[in-house]
Amino acid sequence: MSIVFSFPAYETIANSIADEKDMQRGDVTIRQFPDGESYVRLNSPVQGQDVIIVCGLDKPDRKIMALMFFAHAAREMGAKSIGLVAPYLGYMRQDKKFQDGEAVTADIFAAFLSQIVDWLVTVDPHLHRHEKLNEIYSIPSIAIHANDLIAEWVRVNINRPLLIGPDAESEQWVSEVAKKAGAPFVILTKIRRGDRDVEVSIPNVATWHTHTPILIDDIISTASTMITTAEHLKEAGMKPPVCIGVHGIFAGDAYENLLTSGIENVITCNSIHHKSNGISIENIITHAVMNIKSNPGLLTI
Amino acid sequence: MSIVFSFPAYETIANSIADEKDMQRGDVTIRQFPDGESYVRLNSPVQGQDVIIVCGLDKPDRKIMALMFFAHAAREMGAKSIGLVAPYLGYMRQDKKFQDGEAVTADIFAAFLSQIVDWLVTVDPHLHRHEKLNEIYSIPSIAIHANDLIAEWVRVNINRPLLIGPDAESEQWVSEVAKKAGAPFVILTKIRRGDRDVEVSIPNVATWHTHTPILIDDIISTASTMITTAEHLKEAGMKPPVCIGVHGIFAGDAYENLLTSGIENVITCNSIHHKSNGISIENIITHAVMNIKSNPGLLTI
Repeated sequence: MSIVFSFPAYETIANSIADEKDMQRGDVTIRQFPDGESYVRLNSPVQGQDVIIVCGLDKPDRKIMALMFFAHAAREMGAKSIGLVAPYLGYMRQDKKFQDGEAVTADIFAAFLSQIVDWLVTVDPHLHRHEKLNEIYSIPSIAIHANDLIAEWVRVNINRPLLIGPDAESEQWVSEVAKKAGAPFVILTKIRRGDRDVEVSIPNVATWHTHTPILIDDIISTASTMITTAEHLKEAGMKPPVCIGVHGIFAGDAYENLLTSGIENVITCNSIHHKSNGISIENIITHAVMNIKSNPGLLTI
Repeated sequence: MSIVFSFPAYETIANSIADEKDMQRGDVTIRQFPDGESYVRLNSPVQGQDVIIVCGLDKPDRKIMALMFFAHAAREMGAKSIGLVAPYLGYMRQDKKFQDGEAVTADIFAAFLSQIVDWLVTVDPHLHRHEKLNEIYSIPSIAIHANDLIAEWVRVNINRPLLIGPDAESEQWVSEVAKKAGAPFVILTKIRRGDRDVEVSIPNVATWHTHTPILIDDIISTASTMITTAEHLKEAGMKPPVCIGVHGIFAGDAYENLLTSGIENVITCNSIHHKSNGISIENIITHAVMNIKSNPGLLTI
């Protein structure tokens, strides 16, 4: 038997997994003391069971101690294994030293998380200089993709879409989504000067005036890239774009800033709970977890 | 040579240590990206050096990832050793399972921190069921005490003081501070019903009407205990008390609530940077660190 626990805000995904055969739902209390320390209590027995915990790692510093406490408590209570479903995986962006003396947090965080849990399932991790999670994660780590769901959403909801990828890195998956949605695409060139300072070059879009531009990115954090791009599209006489992000982090006022930047609307997957959620990933996550259950060989690296 | 780095808000203590012989000050950048992930860059070389990092562990979840990144980066850059000066040490309160299924965070956090750094110096850790840090920390861990400094502050600043300890646990050190300050003391009985719900019994204080009550505790977090006690003292016709905490955490509005609860004033040690700081601990910390430097034997458990 497996028992599925949820961090706050991941109940939909945990319930979807727990609805399957040989799965049950577990109950855990996770809260903060007034002094900012985390408290964790497992209210369901886990002796001899395969434990699955659903905990996205956006704002990872706020959750990682509680996740560590959860895993230690579960092991101490006799759990057979502990798997992590992290719909969003944090600390993937600093994947090299851009300057001397920098901590390569992607590597250090991966090593730490690999000590805490036994396997990992995540959705569209921000792989850039690394091709696969297992270059930095020493536990079996499975990345699933929201491409099909996004392509389907575009196909059903948008008339004459033009997919727009923000940078060269995005070409591979934007082209794939475009192909599946039966839509054309263009890729922009992005120069990042700081956390919030981004310049974007727009290729000749004059031929697409009758299309609805779909700005698509894996992570929407400050939304600077999308806001800048939306302004350029407007200057080029394009229609207001629809913005799609797999993961809507929306740092600070990013969501409000994006909504008021002359776009049509914003849609994200529910990997991070947010009012922009419009594409549900619980089915593909549940499928991935059940695939692991029936093919334990997937958990050998 | 040793090189001393500081997390934000611990510069005074780091500078005090770095002023000593064979010590130098290092520079580190620690900041958060808009998405809540931590960034760490060591701007000083540490090759072959003994590294000391000053980082208090109040609100520990906010800092612990950055501390882990700092330690990994320092080791990767060739540091000979990494010592942590944590003027306040977090996660000391959940030192047992009060209910089934609870994570014993004191033990888990201690094991984790023991993996990151090589030794630890702290001030008045909240030792309750454990007598010594080395029952949970596997690295050499030295606890120093602010008793003498507090006693001296009371002696110099208060006429006819009556020291008041909040609960049975506090008796040992409150009696010691009282003795050093040449003052009488009483110990209260505390019943805790929740994070912020505390009941306090006041013994007969009628004989102390002409004294200034000094409420003294190791940690002021919600300040519920001090506020409740201050109300009881008022009902008993005592003077408004002076409140002294070694560590002023002041969760939420605790400081404002305490100030307006009919007390005289609040004084804390600068283990946690706060406007109530009135007792400086950098000298006793520097002394402890220099003691370790000249007696490396202190670092064998």
